[in-house]
Amino acid sequence: MSARLLRVEVAPDSLFGPENLPYGVFAPPGGELRVGARLGDTVLDLVALLGDPIFARPDLNAFLAAGPDRWRTVRARLRELADAELPIDAVHPINGVELALPVRIGDYVDFYASIDHATNLGRLFRPDSEPLLPNWRHLPVGYHGRAGTVVVSGTPVIRPRGQRRTDSGTPDFGPSRRLDIEAELGFVVGAGSPLGVPVGVDEFAEHVFGVALVNDWSARDIQAWEYQPLGPFLGKSFSTSLSAWVTPMDALAAARIPLPTQTPQPLPYLRGTEDHGLDIELAVAWNGEVVARPPYARMYWSPAQMLAHLTANGASVRPGDLFASGTISGPERDQRGSFIELSWGGAEPITVGDAERTFLADGDEVVITATAPGTAGRPIGLGAVSGRILPARG
Amino acid sequence: MSARLLRVEVAPDSLFGPENLPYGVFAPPGGELRVGARLGDTVLDLVALLGDPIFARPDLNAFLAAGPDRWRTVRARLRELADAELPIDAVHPINGVELALPVRIGDYVDFYASIDHATNLGRLFRPDSEPLLPNWRHLPVGYHGRAGTVVVSGTPVIRPRGQRRTDSGTPDFGPSRRLDIEAELGFVVGAGSPLGVPVGVDEFAEHVFGVALVNDWSARDIQAWEYQPLGPFLGKSFSTSLSAWVTPMDALAAARIPLPTQTPQPLPYLRGTEDHGLDIELAVAWNGEVVARPPYARMYWSPAQMLAHLTANGASVRPGDLFASGTISGPERDQRGSFIELSWGGAEPITVGDAERTFLADGDEVVITATAPGTAGRPIGLGAVSGRILPARG
Repeated sequence: MSARLLRVEVAPDSLFGPENLPYGVFAPPGGELRVGARLGDTVLDLVALLGDPIFARPDLNAFLAAGPDRWRTVRARLRELADAELPIDAVHPINGVELALPVRIGDYVDFYASIDHATNLGRLFRPDSEPLLPNWRHLPVGYHGRAGTVVVSGTPVIRPRGQRRTDSGTPDFGPSRRLDIEAELGFVVGAGSPLGVPVGVDEFAEHVFGVALVNDWSARDIQAWEYQPLGPFLGKSFSTSLSAWVTPMDALAAARIPLPTQTPQPLPYLRGTEDHGLDIELAVAWNGEVVARPPYARMYWSPAQMLAHLTANGASVRPGDLFASGTISGPERDQRGSFIELSWGGAEPITVGDAERTFLADGDEVVITATAPGTAGRPIGLGAVSGRILPARG
Repeated sequence: MSARLLRVEVAPDSLFGPENLPYGVFAPPGGELRVGARLGDTVLDLVALLGDPIFARPDLNAFLAAGPDRWRTVRARLRELADAELPIDAVHPINGVELALPVRIGDYVDFYASIDHATNLGRLFRPDSEPLLPNWRHLPVGYHGRAGTVVVSGTPVIRPRGQRRTDSGTPDFGPSRRLDIEAELGFVVGAGSPLGVPVGVDEFAEHVFGVALVNDWSARDIQAWEYQPLGPFLGKSFSTSLSAWVTPMDALAAARIPLPTQTPQPLPYLRGTEDHGLDIELAVAWNGEVVARPPYARMYWSPAQMLAHLTANGASVRPGDLFASGTISGPERDQRGSFIELSWGGAEPITVGDAERTFLADGDEVVITATAPGTAGRPIGLGAVSGRILPARG
């Protein structure tokens, strides 16, 4: 029997040790999509290991809907299994499997929760006005994005075509010339809420399952022309990339920190008693070179406040809903999570490799990674989110 | 055998004769949800009549995904059956069944395609600026709404709570005082499109299955405070009502009309060769009294242009996606499809029953209906969309 069992060896400096154990959806060679957990450089087949049909599906949604007691039970069992000898058929090298979008996404909301990002974008998009609009410090500004074009990390991104303002005042139509990234965290809703019943700030853990990395690709020229008065639409809806791995909130217990001070104090429905800040640092690599390290710890609004606001009007959430933080930027230039900020609207190119760069060129690849303090005294990683730009079609 | 068969009697002035035959989802007494078609005041059970498992589901999505050839085949067969003797078990009085949301909605997009509505809202929300923003005549402005809170006609609407601007400049939080309707048409996507491939204006019929009525309930005070710079969010996301019946585009062949003239001429990707205007007249009843008759014939942008624009950047559509027209308003006061327009921001109340009214009060009911020229020389109806306001909770 021993030939058919193995213990997964995890390097001591791995970001995916047994205290992490993110979930994803994968297909083993010749097999169907199913739910797995990542351990080191392997994927554990949860159908094979746990024998539970909830994992024999092409998305996490059934497990998400099962709720926090079930999430904790499964996680506890996986932590035991991570130290045990496992059937060899249930363990796959990560490079040998196909990774799929982990969640069938219901609604996708994107917030705007970084004060540095909102200030930068305000200056760039509305140079003649106060950069922060009057509502910004009172509520987490957000909007709905397109759920159907959320794609798994690694999916190529076709340069979008669209209307762009010209000097004549009338638009033309063609491939975006200001294609950008937005480095964000995405929060995956597990247990839903009924229509009419807001979710309180401190009920966050009962509803939110975990966190993933998001790159909300943005065509700034399309966005600048279209976004008044109803907000971003085609400048964002062509593709949003999501990491293949969703890290459970429980794995981030050591990353919980107080929020930066909020002034003025938020209205009561946005106040909580727990620490809902997260000490997660992202790294944005442009063609292999790290150009920014956006600090999630600096975000003004917490994900718990985002969920409380999103549901304050009675809107329901469903298992598989995704809400993202908006671009994460810190106060320093090398902490900015978008290229429009890094290059100050294209006016101040940055050096990448041997070139001066502003926005994305065809063939460029962007990989966003992130680390956080782990519960075992060493950092853990979020799954990477990557994408390469393909030329516009047609 | 004759005791077990019946021929459905349809009144000559019925808006739901055999040339209409909209689809919906219903549960017969004690039975499961399934797909049906409306004929007069009855619902035909398509599982029982056609024996096709595609209809033995709680939504239309599988049928939508089957594509236009299948839609035409089924419709032709239903038109034959409408004149035939049918098994009594397959025919249900409409008042005896439960009607459900007909479509599992993927993404919900709301446009802003009425020039009269956009002009009125511009005057009311931005009184110091040009009412139509520079982009408006160049593209159908739109944004993503919340798909998870689209509810079937008849579902009560709980008055939302939210942040409202006060005279002091800081917001307070409480029940909306300016609760409104938006009378719209909603277009249901049948056959999807792949990521990266735009849908042309004249490919509309290959992708769009049918039309339903939409009431996009709106809290104007919440919306006015939150909507800059990313667009409407909680002012709209608490509930959007959809009629229980989806009328196939083929039933609206006699309603096709040229669009009003578009100046300037749209960019090539928004031009088509077919007539994509629709001569549909809505009626908005507030507590039983018709207060407006918005004319869809006056809409500036066609639904085919909306779909072409929505996908111009390569965004995919999925079976079950819904895109709505935005509020339908004509140039006359009694053609305005929202109460903020009818009452001019509350400044000019209208008489409803014996009262002067501006926005919705608890207990109010709104029912929106619509008629269009039918192919049999008499009008056909869209399914009604209704809702009653319940008081805010908590």
